[in-house]
Amino acid sequence: MFTKIFDNINNKHPLVHCITNYVTVNDVANVLLACGASPIMADDVKEVEEITSLCTALNINIGTLNSRTINSMLKAGKKANELSHTIVLDPVGAGASSFRTNTTFDLLENIKFSVIRGNISEIKTVDKGSGTTQGVDANVSDAVTELNLDEVVAFSKRLSKRTGAIIVITGAIDIVANSEKAYIIRNGHSTMSKVTGTGCMLSAMIAAFVGANQEEPLLAATAAVCTMGLAGELAYKRIMEEDKGSSTLRTYIIDEISKMTAEKLKEGAKIEIK
Amino acid sequence: MFTKIFDNINNKHPLVHCITNYVTVNDVANVLLACGASPIMADDVKEVEEITSLCTALNINIGTLNSRTINSMLKAGKKANELSHTIVLDPVGAGASSFRTNTTFDLLENIKFSVIRGNISEIKTVDKGSGTTQGVDANVSDAVTELNLDEVVAFSKRLSKRTGAIIVITGAIDIVANSEKAYIIRNGHSTMSKVTGTGCMLSAMIAAFVGANQEEPLLAATAAVCTMGLAGELAYKRIMEEDKGSSTLRTYIIDEISKMTAEKLKEGAKIEIK
Amino acid sequence: MFTKIFDNINNKHPLVHCITNYVTVNDVANVLLACGASPIMADDVKEVEEITSLCTALNINIGTLNSRTINSMLKAGKKANELSHTIVLDPVGAGASSFRTNTTFDLLENIKFSVIRGNISEIKTVDKGSGTTQGVDANVSDAVTELNLDEVVAFSKRLSKRTGAIIVITGAIDIVANSEKAYIIRNGHSTMSKVTGTGCMLSAMIAAFVGANQEEPLLAATAAVCTMGLAGELAYKRIMEEDKGSSTLRTYIIDEISKMTAEKLKEGAKIEIK
Repeated sequence: MFTKIFDNINNKHPLVHCITNYVTVNDVANVLLACGASPIMADDVKEVEEITSLCTALNINIGTLNSRTINSMLKAGKKANELSHTIVLDPVGAGASSFRTNTTFDLLENIKFSVIRGNISEIKTVDKGSGTTQGVDANVSDAVTELNLDEVVAFSKRLSKRTGAIIVITGAIDIVANSEKAYIIRNGHSTMSKVTGTGCMLSAMIAAFVGANQEEPLLAATAAVCTMGLAGELAYKRIMEEDKGSSTLRTYIIDEISKMTAEKLKEGAKIEIK
Repeated sequence: MFTKIFDNINNKHPLVHCITNYVTVNDVANVLLACGASPIMADDVKEVEEITSLCTALNINIGTLNSRTINSMLKAGKKANELSHTIVLDPVGAGASSFRTNTTFDLLENIKFSVIRGNISEIKTVDKGSGTTQGVDANVSDAVTELNLDEVVAFSKRLSKRTGAIIVITGAIDIVANSEKAYIIRNGHSTMSKVTGTGCMLSAMIAAFVGANQEEPLLAATAAVCTMGLAGELAYKRIMEEDKGSSTLRTYIIDEISKMTAEKLKEGAKIEIK
Repeated sequence: MFTKIFDNINNKHPLVHCITNYVTVNDVANVLLACGASPIMADDVKEVEEITSLCTALNINIGTLNSRTINSMLKAGKKANELSHTIVLDPVGAGASSFRTNTTFDLLENIKFSVIRGNISEIKTVDKGSGTTQGVDANVSDAVTELNLDEVVAFSKRLSKRTGAIIVITGAIDIVANSEKAYIIRNGHSTMSKVTGTGCMLSAMIAAFVGANQEEPLLAATAAVCTMGLAGELAYKRIMEEDKGSSTLRTYIIDEISKMTAEKLKEGAKIEIK
């Protein structure tokens, strides 16, 4: 199922331009290398267009948003759109402050994203900024469970239709949806929430996976989500065996990503189509 | 002794707003998750008031101070004071440049801190900015040893009285003092100085521990200091057994914090009251 | 061969002022501690002169260059030159954008560097900004191999003569050259390219090694390069034995640096003089 996806990453070594937060930036760079891609971090408005032109994909993450880099995000995004590059938005904390929410809306208005990844409350904030008028989707609850899964899937498909982006909602259950089809992924382990940056790392990986597989973006994004989830499971198993804690879990998640193959993923992936 | 302290953290999961340096920020975020709290890093002046309002505690660290974030620190601090949040100051490098020293004085003048944590020379700089006129405390030497311990304890109590903040001085021997009582902690291991960020991590943990235990701030701060020290001892023991080095020590310190319990701490804490 | 180099670091504990990128800054700080030095990160124009005055060496890295810190780099560099401190330039990404290239040229024009370290394409960009008029060196290919090694060595010596700096080119084969003599180092392992920051860490280590050994800068820089390479080999061996991946490799590289001695290095170093 994922053989071609992995082959393309390993053959193309996609270069991913990241304008991202300073909290998890090192893990983001290392996870890109681990999965067969390469990172380049550059956020000054004087160089983002040139840098993004060298790349396959652009990953915009608003985790430690500041006034200086908003313009860089907009410029890089527009240039990447011109070049038909893959662009991922990770709207970290959208909804937590009007600054982040408004910036998210600005980015959505000016850039056509290939993928938007967040937790359910961030994606609901994205929904508010994507031109919905009925506001019905605001009823979607703030956690994805087996009980409201169908509702969230339908919401994701509608949002994908409106934005043109693949919607990735991560949590206990992960959803990867375009307007017509959704993959539901039940990999991962709850202890991953003890590690900062698994979301940021995943968004960067999605940029790499989709960037190297532009003809199969939905499956590529799904492969990235499964890889992160399965790596989390394997890492958790190992820290339990070795009586280790949350920082080793972080290390082992990236280790497992660096050792992931299409075969391992096929065996471990817990995917359903809706 | 620490059961209620730990229970409160585990039940309340305090959210800690960090305006901190970019050197150790990832470890700070991970250690907050490890100890049962949650981090949110935000330093833009346009959002710090909103963000800090969502939180239980604010942690201000001047480690890579820059002109852009000083105003953010002041705004966040004033808002957190209005809301009676726990606020910790980590005056990294105060005394090393007039920029850091003056900013420390500005912060002290405008924000009422719950806790101020630093090494002895940073805390002596704080003392200069806290309205002392006699200058006697300047005689306190630059290392805390068994020989000058009583003198430093007396200094800490006086400084606590003047500032209204709990004073935490860390080094080979750690001191946690309010105006009337001081805990002396002899946990930790000298090899911890081979890892950057144990001080920054500790300040963030103190914000979490005190934030979740506002009725017992002195004991909560002491629990945080003991947790870091004991984690360092356990981590050091393990790297020696496994023939590892300073980077694994860093990993294992956070691991041990993620596995710490009130029972383990009771058994391992080396505390004296002065 | 390296006994005195290591002794000087361990006795002098050089303090290294780093103006560096936010991607690898934590690893840079930890590797400096691991090798017996101390880091101080400070990039605000209001304090860089004071901070660099306290130090033995200055390490300038343009990895996430932004307009705010260029002036800080220039001011710190001029002050460090006044004080005859060791100064290292790591022109990360020079050539990838005109912003980085022009900043590199500005730095070269205004600061006299002790060492310039980069990969071959970064160093070729440095060459363009160092007053060459013939442009012959532009013919040097973009990878150093056994086939073009003599040519690259000659290029390095010429560039060293023109700039007055020791030139360090790292890749599969590493070169450390002044105008008359070059050390060729064949330590390291290809898997190190799966870890971000080994170059940044090495530049900081060079600053520490040379700073503590100003009378033997070429040998000191060579010791730093060998240390990183040998640490990579030992770390790679260990992750293979333990079935681990790229993030543990990162951890073990720093571990091995923290355990490195002159004796181990003598045994493991693969050095040739040209």
